[in-house]
Amino acid sequence: MAGSGADNLEARIRLIEDRLEIYNLIASHPPSADTGASDYTASVWTEDGVFDRGDEFAKPAGRAAIAGTSASAEHHRAIEQGIAHFAGLPYVRVTGDTAFAISYLQILVPDRVGPVFEVPNHGATRGFHVHRVSANRWDFVRTAEGWRIKRRRLRSLDGSEGAREILRGTFEADG
Amino acid sequence: MAGSGADNLEARIRLIEDRLEIYNLIASHPPSADTGASDYTASVWTEDGVFDRGDEFAKPAGRAAIAGTSASAEHHRAIEQGIAHFAGLPYVRVTGDTAFAISYLQILVPDRVGPVFEVPNHGATRGFHVHRVSANRWDFVRTAEGWRIKRRRLRSLDGSEGAREILRGTFEADG
Amino acid sequence: MAGSGADNLEARIRLIEDRLEIYNLIASHPPSADTGASDYTASVWTEDGVFDRGDEFAKPAGRAAIAGTSASAEHHRAIEQGIAHFAGLPYVRVTGDTAFAISYLQILVPDRVGPVFEVPNHGATRGFHVHRVSANRWDFVRTAEGWRIKRRRLRSLDGSEGAREILRGTFEADG
Repeated sequence: MAGSGADNLEARIRLIEDRLEIYNLIASHPPSADTGASDYTASVWTEDGVFDRGDEFAKPAGRAAIAGTSASAEHHRAIEQGIAHFAGLPYVRVTGDTAFAISYLQILVPDRVGPVFEVPNHGATRGFHVHRVSANRWDFVRTAEGWRIKRRRLRSLDGSEGAREILRGTFEADG
Repeated sequence: MAGSGADNLEARIRLIEDRLEIYNLIASHPPSADTGASDYTASVWTEDGVFDRGDEFAKPAGRAAIAGTSASAEHHRAIEQGIAHFAGLPYVRVTGDTAFAISYLQILVPDRVGPVFEVPNHGATRGFHVHRVSANRWDFVRTAEGWRIKRRRLRSLDGSEGAREILRGTFEADG
Repeated sequence: MAGSGADNLEARIRLIEDRLEIYNLIASHPPSADTGASDYTASVWTEDGVFDRGDEFAKPAGRAAIAGTSASAEHHRAIEQGIAHFAGLPYVRVTGDTAFAISYLQILVPDRVGPVFEVPNHGATRGFHVHRVSANRWDFVRTAEGWRIKRRRLRSLDGSEGAREILRGTFEADG
């Protein structure tokens, strides 16, 4: 960590820039999912990327297939009904040319059936329903064009073991 | 990105500091809204700032009018009933003396009518109701006193086009 | 802020690294709470740490007692039923060898009784219930082994004064 030679400082700055680039990658995911930005999605995955949402869903492998899920008619139906992916503060660790993040994600949808609530100075709505809360592990690799997603795995925080296994990645020793 | 002369390093550090200052500006918004901190609000907007919450609400223009909304009796009624603005991880891009961010925001209020739920080790509550989820675009300018908010526009993620237009800002090319 | 001598640059870089280390400390809390990682919890608190969740709960004092709360049978019952601590973007200020953060935290649990909602491309669930939303103040100290938590205080955003008192810390003058 220590050291103040220019080379050393440059390495420390680069590590910080890496970290901030990864924050922006994770922050870009909700806007891409909620608009169906499949070109963007294709641009941030590696060619051989793997997206694993659990046994309940198809497991698209490869950049084109992953981008395809957000271009599907079914996904666009969700968008038209209103959907919000909501990302919490992620844990991020960069090690040389690889990095990983452990993050929480909510999916919310407008409530269509509940009563209307009025909040002073904030209008009247039926509110939103939290459809899912998941634990996410992102694995990144540095490429000549910047950081790319190599693997993303998520599991519902519904009490099952899969989510806890992902969360424990936060505490794994550097390898 | 490259380069390790001291001037170059200083420019890279400044860009990082800018980014972190903007994270703190966005993170300061919920505490200011939830306490009605109108002096603080006045201090972080430009004189000619514009705050646009959509056609449903008044569009205060100028620092004094914007700060005034959080000083209103109606807003303080919301605060006394309990209100939480909850900010997700924002996408932030700094370009010289301007910057913008795309962020998600929830507004939650205590549930006054639902059943009481008990969660082991976490007490018994009626819980909270998600009143709104919005897409936000923030435009910032650098001033002699630090970064200031020039414009903030938000739209509900209820399926309408306004929110998606905001979110697509994440993917716009540098100008 | 200004200056580009190597010593000065090093000090600015260190401040940024401090800030990012604190982001990771806050981001590690939900994974530790949701897996009951008591060894990790013990490692990030000072020996004399104080964790104050309000009068409704016991106030464990000292690292061992704080770690003990996440090792309790009651806490593990909550984990098995499904629980998600969800952290928003925190406000963070570092001043020399101390730092503090003001953050929002949600606690969500799977809904076991409501109707099943289907969202296109996102499956069918009963959704999640927001059990609590709290305002948190974290006080940190720098140690030879890195930043440690000295005090954490949280209060529910249910309209009572305690939460607002915490949130106002965002606007306190340096000193």
